[in-house]
Amino acid sequence: MADAAIDLLGRGGAREISHGKVDRHANVPPGTTSFYFRTRKALLHAIAERVTELDIIDLSRMTELAGDAAAGYTGTIGLARLVVASNAEPFLTRSRARYELALQASREPELAAYLSHFASQITELTRQVIREWHGADAEPDDAALDEEVLMVLTCINGVMMSFVHGAPAVTDAEQLDRWLQTILSGVGRLNR
Amino acid sequence: MADAAIDLLGRGGAREISHGKVDRHANVPPGTTSFYFRTRKALLHAIAERVTELDIIDLSRMTELAGDAAAGYTGTIGLARLVVASNAEPFLTRSRARYELALQASREPELAAYLSHFASQITELTRQVIREWHGADAEPDDAALDEEVLMVLTCINGVMMSFVHGAPAVTDAEQLDRWLQTILSGVGRLNR
Repeated sequence: MADAAIDLLGRGGAREISHGKVDRHANVPPGTTSFYFRTRKALLHAIAERVTELDIIDLSRMTELAGDAAAGYTGTIGLARLVVASNAEPFLTRSRARYELALQASREPELAAYLSHFASQITELTRQVIREWHGADAEPDDAALDEEVLMVLTCINGVMMSFVHGAPAVTDAEQLDRWLQTILSGVGRLNR
Repeated sequence: MADAAIDLLGRGGAREISHGKVDRHANVPPGTTSFYFRTRKALLHAIAERVTELDIIDLSRMTELAGDAAAGYTGTIGLARLVVASNAEPFLTRSRARYELALQASREPELAAYLSHFASQITELTRQVIREWHGADAEPDDAALDEEVLMVLTCINGVMMSFVHGAPAVTDAEQLDRWLQTILSGVGRLNR
């Protein structure tokens, strides 16, 4: 049911979410969704929980791959590949659902708590990539690293948003990798 | 009516938009909104049109100010101030409404056409700022400039999105100005 609801939310937007529509889309008897999730709020929470669960599975796989140079998922290019992958299914519909939930979450703190899992996991992955990019002997202090992570994540957020809006800001992972390196090079240059 | 509808959409999300709710929020007799805008689609288009109209007025004012060094709206700091201003009312509710519309627009091309006005105007302003940043004697070629503009805009989009989500990525215009300069310095460094 939660998977059917993610699909409805991602494809049709928040208005598509009703207990009856989820029943039909999930091919379950009428009333099933409202039996498990009494209120619309409960249903949205269930969707957020399932989105988070799927994100954590995928991001964990990516984090494992990030150590595997042969798979091409190391460093900034690995991060770029992960982001660009979100422009294809099943990730794109899930991204759309996540942004729909995020818009709701600014009005509902409990929903925001679920979404923070995705944020903290991608933050951790980004921090690791940036640390490696600098190398062990040129690691920035914590405050500088925090700001670089925030900057890269904000840019990544803009890119993922552009996918969701159907107007991709980058065409491939190589281009996004150049962007990430541009940001990181710029930081070094300003700090000289 | 359109202003009342922007307010509803920005504060409550797409689900809050109905003819009856707009009537009540605009303090007009029941039936007025559906008299002027027969369908929900027509109503959403009217909202998009009004958002665009307001954006164009504000951005035009900003573009004029961009020539005025005394007002502090020149260069990258001017652009940064414009973006950070969107984290306060009345711009924040309008931003939220614009992102709600943008999520709908990925499913409805006519709606996307309205929103493209805002995009093209802020693109033009950004291009002008980046050109000036490089200076007349160090201007990049068109392809390089296009990519810098896209990169800065994507980052700005991420920042505006963070405001809408209630988790601001930057605390003030000075910080965002550093980010913009970081990007532009990085481009120069990679091209050396």
